[in-house]
This record gives sequence, structure tokens and C-alpha cells, in this order.
Amino acid sequence: MLRYLTSGESHGKCLVSIVDGIPAGLFIDKARIDAELSKRMLGYGRGKRMHMECDKVNILAGLRKSLTIGSPIALMIENRDHSIDSLPAVLEPRPGHADLAGVLKYGFKDARDVLERASARETASRVAVGSIARILLSEFGIKVLSHVTAIDGVLANTRGMSVKDISANSGKSPVNCADPKASKLMCREIDRAIEHGDTLGGMFEVIITGVPAGLGSYAQWDKRLDAILARAVMSIQAIKGVSLGLGFESAIRKGSLVQDEIFYDKKKGFYRNSNNAGGVEGGMSNGEHIIVRSAMKPIATLAKPLASVNIKTKKAVRASVQRSDICAVPAAGVVAEAVCAVEIANAMIDKFGGDSIREMRRNYDGYIKELKKI
Amino acid sequence: MLRYLTSGESHGKCLVSIVDGIPAGLFIDKARIDAELSKRMLGYGRGKRMHMECDKVNILAGLRKSLTIGSPIALMIENRDHSIDSLPAVLEPRPGHADLAGVLKYGFKDARDVLERASARETASRVAVGSIARILLSEFGIKVLSHVTAIDGVLANTRGMSVKDISANSGKSPVNCADPKASKLMCREIDRAIEHGDTLGGMFEVIITGVPAGLGSYAQWDKRLDAILARAVMSIQAIKGVSLGLGFESAIRKGSLVQDEIFYDKKKGFYRNSNNAGGVEGGMSNGEHIIVRSAMKPIATLAKPLASVNIKTKKAVRASVQRSDICAVPAAGVVAEAVCAVEIANAMIDKFGGDSIREMRRNYDGYIKELKKI
Amino acid sequence: MLRYLTSGESHGKCLVSIVDGIPAGLFIDKARIDAELSKRMLGYGRGKRMHMECDKVNILAGLRKSLTIGSPIALMIENRDHSIDSLPAVLEPRPGHADLAGVLKYGFKDARDVLERASARETASRVAVGSIARILLSEFGIKVLSHVTAIDGVLANTRGMSVKDISANSGKSPVNCADPKASKLMCREIDRAIEHGDTLGGMFEVIITGVPAGLGSYAQWDKRLDAILARAVMSIQAIKGVSLGLGFESAIRKGSLVQDEIFYDKKKGFYRNSNNAGGVEGGMSNGEHIIVRSAMKPIATLAKPLASVNIKTKKAVRASVQRSDICAVPAAGVVAEAVCAVEIANAMIDKFGGDSIREMRRNYDGYIKELKKI
Amino acid sequence: MLRYLTSGESHGKCLVSIVDGIPAGLFIDKARIDAELSKRMLGYGRGKRMHMECDKVNILAGLRKSLTIGSPIALMIENRDHSIDSLPAVLEPRPGHADLAGVLKYGFKDARDVLERASARETASRVAVGSIARILLSEFGIKVLSHVTAIDGVLANTRGMSVKDISANSGKSPVNCADPKASKLMCREIDRAIEHGDTLGGMFEVIITGVPAGLGSYAQWDKRLDAILARAVMSIQAIKGVSLGLGFESAIRKGSLVQDEIFYDKKKGFYRNSNNAGGVEGGMSNGEHIIVRSAMKPIATLAKPLASVNIKTKKAVRASVQRSDICAVPAAGVVAEAVCAVEIANAMIDKFGGDSIREMRRNYDGYIKELKKI
Repeated sequence: MLRYLTSGESHGKCLVSIVDGIPAGLFIDKARIDAELSKRMLGYGRGKRMHMECDKVNILAGLRKSLTIGSPIALMIENRDHSIDSLPAVLEPRPGHADLAGVLKYGFKDARDVLERASARETASRVAVGSIARILLSEFGIKVLSHVTAIDGVLANTRGMSVKDISANSGKSPVNCADPKASKLMCREIDRAIEHGDTLGGMFEVIITGVPAGLGSYAQWDKRLDAILARAVMSIQAIKGVSLGLGFESAIRKGSLVQDEIFYDKKKGFYRNSNNAGGVEGGMSNGEHIIVRSAMKPIATLAKPLASVNIKTKKAVRASVQRSDICAVPAAGVVAEAVCAVEIANAMIDKFGGDSIREMRRNYDGYIKELKKI
Repeated sequence: MLRYLTSGESHGKCLVSIVDGIPAGLFIDKARIDAELSKRMLGYGRGKRMHMECDKVNILAGLRKSLTIGSPIALMIENRDHSIDSLPAVLEPRPGHADLAGVLKYGFKDARDVLERASARETASRVAVGSIARILLSEFGIKVLSHVTAIDGVLANTRGMSVKDISANSGKSPVNCADPKASKLMCREIDRAIEHGDTLGGMFEVIITGVPAGLGSYAQWDKRLDAILARAVMSIQAIKGVSLGLGFESAIRKGSLVQDEIFYDKKKGFYRNSNNAGGVEGGMSNGEHIIVRSAMKPIATLAKPLASVNIKTKKAVRASVQRSDICAVPAAGVVAEAVCAVEIANAMIDKFGGDSIREMRRNYDGYIKELKKI
Repeated sequence: MLRYLTSGESHGKCLVSIVDGIPAGLFIDKARIDAELSKRMLGYGRGKRMHMECDKVNILAGLRKSLTIGSPIALMIENRDHSIDSLPAVLEPRPGHADLAGVLKYGFKDARDVLERASARETASRVAVGSIARILLSEFGIKVLSHVTAIDGVLANTRGMSVKDISANSGKSPVNCADPKASKLMCREIDRAIEHGDTLGGMFEVIITGVPAGLGSYAQWDKRLDAILARAVMSIQAIKGVSLGLGFESAIRKGSLVQDEIFYDKKKGFYRNSNNAGGVEGGMSNGEHIIVRSAMKPIATLAKPLASVNIKTKKAVRASVQRSDICAVPAAGVVAEAVCAVEIANAMIDKFGGDSIREMRRNYDGYIKELKKI
Repeated sequence: MLRYLTSGESHGKCLVSIVDGIPAGLFIDKARIDAELSKRMLGYGRGKRMHMECDKVNILAGLRKSLTIGSPIALMIENRDHSIDSLPAVLEPRPGHADLAGVLKYGFKDARDVLERASARETASRVAVGSIARILLSEFGIKVLSHVTAIDGVLANTRGMSVKDISANSGKSPVNCADPKASKLMCREIDRAIEHGDTLGGMFEVIITGVPAGLGSYAQWDKRLDAILARAVMSIQAIKGVSLGLGFESAIRKGSLVQDEIFYDKKKGFYRNSNNAGGVEGGMSNGEHIIVRSAMKPIATLAKPLASVNIKTKKAVRASVQRSDICAVPAAGVVAEAVCAVEIANAMIDKFGGDSIREMRRNYDGYIKELKKI
């Protein structure tokens, strides 16, 4: 079982995570984690804080000579600004944020006690944890990528693009969008939003390739891989919707146009010519790419703030303004990659067991060999 | 902590569930559970099996004189047809079902070993479990309802309808749709699908009223209420998308048009004039109605079956045809009500603790009283 | 992950359990479960109820043609007497039972609401669940047995006896004791206790043979196999102490006389000439027999009842007398076998993964082969 | 739900833990944590390492102005010596340690990969985590202490001593023993063991005062407080036995001499004149002191090492010698205090819920008030 806890406040000393359950013998290249952390900070439309931050991971525990040894791994990312104790109180809760509900839940007199932890700053931890999972997955040829499919009303058209194309194209886009035309329009929308003191949301897609058939299970409700992925992605700050494959579109198509017909070829084994299911049938991976789509609402902190109420005086005010981004959809995609990587890694560990990469690999190979015999 | 396990196959003796963690002193009216079970079986477009079934719960353990006593509660629903051992092998896996992935995962030679458990028959268990949770929630004035918002391409228009209206209207519709015109068109689409040997999916909305602010938490990723609800709903058979509030629409709106502004009134306390967040901000309930929207793909068993492959001979065949429905969107809504009820009940227990309803109620009242002082 | 929930009251309709996570393809012989259930009911010193009971398991879900299919398994044991709703109130809590603490915790006005679930009747469920685990373990040559080492002050002497001898001898004893002399004395003590209206406790030992080295882990506190076994055994009604290997005796010996020296032989691999550790070092199985010793206090219901207080009137009274045993140590040993079997099975599943017995076996064989290479 | 993960190796940079689920509003005095860490390092018979170490906690996350804010709390303790990557390989596994089983489990070629994490150094993390739990418990008047009851064959006599006396006396003893005579003899035995290159184990007792009746539950096996405490204590390195109250002695007494009779007094409510149960009946706290007794085997690293086998050459050798203690029973007691504090805190949170100390306190007070009415 892979499990992890994150900790850390937005303006605390640092973010600290512990990942428990990674098999022994995995080489952890710190540079790969840092690269993911950098990806999270990029994207047209990020605020000034992103330029200040230059997240680097510090692996505090769990390795010997850069190899995992079955021990839990502790990851630390320092905050540049750790003025949590001296920052002013926040009395004007921002609509769309945790501020008000948090004050009510915990009985706080200052919404700063809420926003320090509720902040999306926490997602840096998850990206670091996800990087460990990705390194594990790459031992089995499993890759995880994301690309932005919409910002505001601008939709990307990626029909007919291969995963390779999507990866290459989105890599060149300042908003991680695989459609070059849409990418430009998205940047323009971001510019406009800056002018108007507004913020933008959007959609992204996570694609996971190389996943063997048979992860997850229909045997118990909480073992279903789609449910597990939905939880992981929906747990990211500002995410309001998650879907697999065709998602909501599958609801308005006839059954004959939704299900992915089954074919067989001696070399390939069972295969499909479509992937409307998004790689999950009956709560299990079916061997096709896993496709998770998600919607992020616009950042809730606006330069032109919305109506709020002072929690002390109860007077109508404008919401507090915290340093923030205009659009963070590309970053949310990177975080979603991370949390999906963790869940797929966990499902791999669940199916293949193994205390070392070598043992896990042996079990995996045995299964793949058997699949070919079916 | 509320937890539950379900068991049972589609053509086994019965479905059995155990719910652990319900406080003592709750009166369990078996009729309320049976009423929910009946609701799950209804809906225009259900197959013959539904008419055969007449699910009644049998409470095997956990009550004394119809009251909970803190013990786990065991619920049994008998199957009319329990021919699991004699039913023929299924060698032609149905696209869109667990059949093929299940055979690969478990190394089965017969997809019946998969479909017996993967079947949506299992959702009767979850409705029974959810009914217990609903009885708990009703002690705190929390209600859960669902209504169908789309079948195939027919969209319901419920703008401006109150929850009361939605409840009343959908109650009169054979497809649990609150828009009478759409309801008729939906039924017509179902008739057409029957003619064409096709199946239909759709969308539904779960509305949870009376939830206090402060359930769930942003403190750790797996404590976020939206993530928990997404997992629960996505774990239902054939669900391909889940969203909260505006959901995917929030991705294409400006920030200033998405966040729900905050107001205050001496009587009402803090309130909103909109509920685009769907009642969850920062992973916590914010005191507004919780709105979960979901997309169900069309039933994967088609009367005119799709292309498949015989798992033994590897020859191209038509998929197996099992007794099935044409459209089960209203039923999926009922199941979603149940799983959401469980999660809200769990979040209530998490926040308020208490070994008896009386103790839980006292703790709840203390919190509500405190909220009013803020 | 293997997990299970039990339910059921002492005088309810039945006991129901669900076991989740058993791999597919395991043949479940109902007779093996019933045999374990019978073992639990035997033992000199049991009360009349035991003669009334003749527990048989009813497998309600999870099998097809007697084989597991990866589904959760539901097990039911009917109660002969299911008068829970009509049995009289219990107002005189019995010292040593859950009665008083349960009344305080749940706010009950009648201790029957407590004792119905707190009763050791519940252990029949655990024996049934454990039987499933044993069937799984026997696929890997792992066996679990128990024998009584003390009743009241009579201690068995089993020094120098092999596991085989212990098994054979204890099988012939009415109190499951491997020392024939002690066995007789134990029975005599039980007779005396009956005369005096008193009850007796004792000690037993669970021996688990065939466990491969490497189950459990020191990597995280809750993964340690000794901790897991201690929890399982201590969770049995009336158990007041648990130890591994030498246990408390190891505390009064010098280090040089406690640790088991390590030797190597080409055929056997690494081995020990002693097993003071009881088969667990560093929270992991070390390949030797696992030895768990445990102490059971005397049954808390006495024919000559102790001082108590009427919970309604607060007057000093004698404690309530429920139908009960004089000595249940042999039965507790059988229950301990069951709960240990579950935990070892879980640790096996954790290490070897696998959705089917065939896959789990392949992974296990690969590991054993590798061990021989070290 | 309170949960925690620890990480860190014996010669790594540091030990890092995350505690999740502590309510908001708790003042965390770093000095209290450091004081516990110091207590863990003391005790006659500790090796040189202990003098080198001077553990101080560094609270990396989870506080604002020294108050908890509902966030997970990250705790770091630096290691003086962090030469993990350069320390030599360990090829001679030490009997009684994780060394050999760990090498087999993980397929390591060097037992250092095992011992770095398996080391009791890890318990410093648990003491830090436990200190947080203690601070929470002290809000409710719950105190946790330990004292050594045996070292080698020297048994302490504390009959008739009050908890206050035990606390005062043991505080003056270099081995945390409340019996001054025994304390001296224990020290002498330690001196002798040093001379002989041997090590010593012993026994200790954890006493938890102020626990309200009704924590834990008999409703499900894994909710029993005694089972939970047994797991926690048995998870400490070198612990081989755990018991509650009379423990193993209760097995050899008649029932009439074991159960704690029940009395009532208007002022005190229900009370007992004995506490053979050790404060837990039916898996629940009963309002008396909770008494956990435990046996620690002697330290497995001997100055005069035992027989072992080189894992590479397979030749018979003497076991590796690592820097170590002669006797660590007092320290183990401090660690046991910590892990018990965590479990009691978790049981408190489970029963009383509450997101802030204020809310938890209100719920607790309501319960206590109600108890007095019964």
C-alpha cells in the first residue's frame, strides 16, 4: 500500500511530505522531482509569487546512496517567504475560497488560519510525491502527461493527434496546450483578464500510457480505479469536475456509439479501435490509455474583489486580496498528473506486491507473460 | 467513522452488506429502506428483470427493538434468481462492461465469473446502506434527493425551480425528471432506443439540503468533501463524470461570474445569493445546498450487440447479450443519493463524534449555537 | 488488502461477516469452516449454551461453484435462540464485562443493549472468517494450531515436544492441552470451579508453521507483524496479555541467552537452533515458527455473582447472571488461531499481491526461489 | 481521526514525522516536546550515542503563532551523525535484530540497508508525535507516565504505592524505577552486564490517569481499546509482550478474584476498589487508570557478539557490533508512554469529534455532565 501525508502552510517554513510504501531499489534522481516542481510553477498567467518561488526538493529521509530502501521517504520544499506569524489578519473572506467555511468550521477569528493551509501552495508537495510515483511507474513503462484543453471559452482541437504529438505540441505552448492556434488565443484571453482584474479557469486532460489491463477492481466500491482517480483529481484545489474518457459526452450518445468494440490480433492481443471509456471499464484499467478530463474554476482571488463581509464587524466589504495568479490551469494539470501517478502506482503495488523493484518487476513480468497466453 | 462493505453476486443467493459505525439509539424503519429499494427499481426503460425483482431488505443484525445499539448493521436482500452455479459460461465479453478486463485481471476462463459481481445489481446493497445513512441524516434535517437532467440529447430545464418544485415535479415523472416537457421527450427517446436495440445514458443531479457549514477539510487531501463525494459517485457502475455546482461550466466562465459572493444578515447569518460552488468551498461544506452532477454512459449490454472476440477461440463474434435495461439513469440517481448520503453521514460523524444519537445531537447543537455567535 | 467486518448479536437472528480481498480461484470447502466452528464450541468447562449451539456456516455470497471469484465473501451463522427483542433488561452490570462501561458510553438504560454485541458469541464470526484465511494459507503450506498451556494454576510442560507431538497430544485432550498429566489436572480444577460457582482463565499458545521470512515490516510502525498479531489476539474477548516467543521471560534473561544465533546450511539456507524470538525479528517473520502466547482471564459471569450496582436504582446488588461457561481457554485458542490466520494471510497478500491464487502462487514461488539464491 | 507517519534513518539527515488530525487551537510548547525527547535519552545503561545525541524538535509545519490550526504538524529531529551513505556495509547480521529477515525480504546485499531504518533511533519520532498527543490529552486532565518494574531478574515492589508516589519515586531513580532498593540493584546488574559484554531487558508499566469511561468499543474487533494499545506498544522495537492490568497473572487466578466489583457513591458515581482489569473492560475504558505492562527483551547488539553468518560468503562469523546500549528499558517506557498517548488521543477524537479544542472540550463536557446524571 502506497500512502502519503502532506503538511505545510503557504507562508510557513516549508512543505513536508512523507510517502510510505515505495519498494526498495529504486534510484531517485532529485533532478526529476525538481523538474516536475518547475513545471508546476510555469504557465502564462501565473502571478508574481511564481517568479519568486524556485522550488527545489530536499529529500530528508528514505534513501541510501540515492536508492530507496523500503523506508518512508520524507520530502521538504522550502518556502522563500515564511512570515506566517507576522502576516496580518484576514477578516474579509474571499468568495470561492476556503476562507469563510474554514472560519466557521474551526471557530477561527482570522481567515489567515484557514488560507495558509488551504492555499494551492500545498500542491507543490503533491507534485513532489507524485514524482516519486512517476519514477516507480517509469520502471514499468508507464507515463503520465497532461495538456490544457480549454481556458475560458477557448477550446483546443486535438482530434487525430497522437499522444506523442500532444506531448510535443503542448511542450512548446506557454499554456501547455497542444493546439497552437488555441494556445495563442488562450494567452490573449489571459492578457484580457489581467486588464479587467478578472481570472480564468479551464480544462485539462491527463493521459496515462502503458498501464496494464487489470488494475483496480469492481469487487468493492472503493477499489474502483475510476473512483480512485476521481477522488485524487477532485481533491486538487479549484477542481470542480472530473470525467473519464468521453465523460459527460457519453451521456448524450447512444450506447452503440459509446462502447469500445473488442478486437483481437495475435501480436497485439485484445485491442480496441476507440477509447471512449478512457481506459477504464468495470472499475479496472483495460489496457488502453487512461484519459482523465477535468475542469478547473477560475482562481478565486480577484484583483477587482467581490462582495464579502467582515467576519468581525459583519459589515459588507470587498474581499481580501492575496497575491495570486490569473490562470493556473496548466499548473493544475501538472498537479493532476502527480496525483494520478500516485494512484496508479498504488494500484500497481496492490496487484503486484513486492518489497523491491526487482520483486515487483518479476511479479509484473509473470503477469504480462500470462496475459499473452490468454 | 462510518464504513461499509457490500457483497453478493447478480445471480447468487442474496446481497449482503455490513454498515459499521452508526450511533446507538436510531430508530430504523425497514419500510424506509424498502421504499428506497423500490425507487431504485423504477424508471421508464428498465428491463424485465426489474419487474421480477421486488427488493426487500432483511435486517439480519445490529438492531434491538428496531433501534440501533452501536453494533454493525447487516442488511440482506434476496435474489429471486440464484442460479449462479448453473448459468452458462459467457465467452463473448461485452464492450463497455468489466467482462474482458476482469477475465484478464483474474485469469478467468469464463466472463460470468466477472459479471456476476461487476453487475449493477450490487447497487441495491448500496441503496440499502444509504438508507441507513439517510435515516441518520434526517435526525439533523439533512435531506438527499436526485433528479434526471438529461437522457440522450434531451436536456431538462430546471432554472428557477426551487428544490421543493424539483422534488415534486420529478416525483411525477416516469424518468424522475423535473421538467415535464423534457420528461415526455425522454420517454420517447427511450421508446426509440428500444426499437433500435440501442441503449441510452444521461445525467442527473443530487441535491443535499440542510448540511451545516464545516464538513470535510482542506487540511489533508483525502479529507476534502468534494473529493470524497466524487469518489462515491464515480464508483457507481457506468458513471463517467462527476462535478460539483457549475462543474465543467465553471471552467469557461470568468472568475467574477463564478465565485459566490458573501452576504450577512442578522437572522440568516452568512449567506449567498448564488450557489455556483455547489455547496463546497475549500473542500468543506459551506452551508449552501450541495449539488453533485453526474454523467452516466448508456447501458453497455445492447440488444443489437457490438463486435467482440470469443475469449477461448479468439474468433470475432458479437458480444454476449444478458438481460438488461435500456436506460437506467433515474436508478443511477437513486444510487448516487445513497452513496452521497453515506459520505455526508460519515463527515457528520467525523465532526460531531458521539456514540449515541443523543450525544451526536448534543454536539451538533452546540456547534450550531456557536456558529450563530460568530 | 484483506479486510473484514463482523456483525451480529448473541441472541439476534444470526452472525454475519464479510471478508474482502481473498484472491480468485480458491476452493472453499464449507466442511472445513464447520469443523473450525465445532472446535470453537468444544472444551471441558463450557456451559449449556455450547451444547445447544451447533454452528454451521452459510456462505451467502462470494463463490461460484465453490470457488472464490475475487468477490467479497459473506458468511452467516444462525443463532438458535433469537429472542433479542423479548429478553429481559439487565440492570445489574457484571464486573469484568462490557456491561457498565457500555451503558456509560452509549447512554443505554439497559445493559442488554451492550452485552448482546459484546458477548463472545461474536467470536464464531471470527472463526468463520479465519477459516477462509486458513484455506488460503494452506495453499502455501502455512498451518496454524493452538494448544492450552495453563488453566488456573496448572501449567503444561511441553518442553522438547515437536509441533507434531503438540498437535497430536492436544487433539486427545478435553482441554486441548498437549501435556496429558496437566490436562487431567486442568479438568479437575474445572470441576472444582463448577462446585464453587467460580470460573477459570488460562493461557494458550498459537503456533504458525511454514511462514516464509519477510512478512511484515519495520518500515512503518503499523506494519510490524508482531504489533499486528498482538492487536488481533488482544481483540479477543477476555484476553489480557499477548507475547511473542519467550515473551515476558525474555525480559529477565541476559541478551546472550535470548537472541537466536544464526547458522547456515547449503540445503536449509539460514537457520536457527532456538526460537526465543517466536519467529518475528524486527517486525518481520524470520522463517521460524511464529509463536504467540496469550493469557485469558476467567469468565466474568459467575454463578456466585459479585457485587454490583443496579444502574437504575443505584442500589448495591449482586451482578446479573447470564448463561455462561466455567472455562473457555481452549475456545479462545481456536479464536486466536483464526485471527492470526487472517493477519498472516493479509501479510502474504501484502507481499505477494495477486488477484488469483495462481498469480499469488507464481509470485510466491519466484520469491522463494530467489531466497534460495541469497 | 488522528494518524501519523514517521520517517528517517539512524544515520540519515534527520527524522521527520507528520501528525494529522490534531484539532485547532492547541498551544504547542516546543519545550514540552524537547523534555520528552530528553527523557527518552536518559537511563542508566545507555551507550555513548545517547551522550552524543541531544534531540531537539524542529516544528516545520502546522502551527501559527505556536497554535495548531487544524493543519498536519511536521516534526523534525536532526541527527548529529548523518553519514548513512559512507558508513561501511554490514555483512554479519545480528541475531535478534531485523538484519537477516530484512535482507531476505528486500533482497539487499548489505544489512545496513535494513538497520538504518529498523533501528530504535526511529522511536525519537514517536516520542515527538506522542508529545503532541500528550499536550492534547492534558487539556482533558489525562496524564501518561511510565515506570520500570523489572530489569533482568530484579523486580520492583510498588504494591500500595499511589500513582503520585510512583511518579515521584521513579523520577529520582536512574532507571525510572519507583522502588529505591530495586533501583540500586538494577544499576548494579547493568554494571555487571557491561563487564560481561552482555545486555539486559526488563519490564515497565504505563499508567494513564484521567481517562473517561467509554473510549474504544466492542462493536468491531479493531475498535477495542486494549487491542489498539497492544498494537501500539508491541510495535516498539524489542518489545516481546504486552498486557493490561493483571495481565498474565489474571490467567492463574479464580474469576472471583479477578473481576473488579462495582460500587456506587453519589459523589464519585460508579467506582471500583480494585483495578485488575487495568482500566479496560469489554474493549472500552471503564474510568479507572489504564495500566499497560510490557516486556522488553535485552538489546540485541552485544559487545561479545553471538554466532552469525556472513551473508555474502556464508561463512560462520561473529555478528556485527554496532554502537549500542546495555539496557534501554527506561527509554522503552518513555516510548510506550508516547504511543499510548497517541492512541488515547485518537480514541478521544473518535468519541468527541470537534475541529477545535474548544469544540472538542464542549462535547467532552457535555458527555461528562451526562455521565453524572446516569
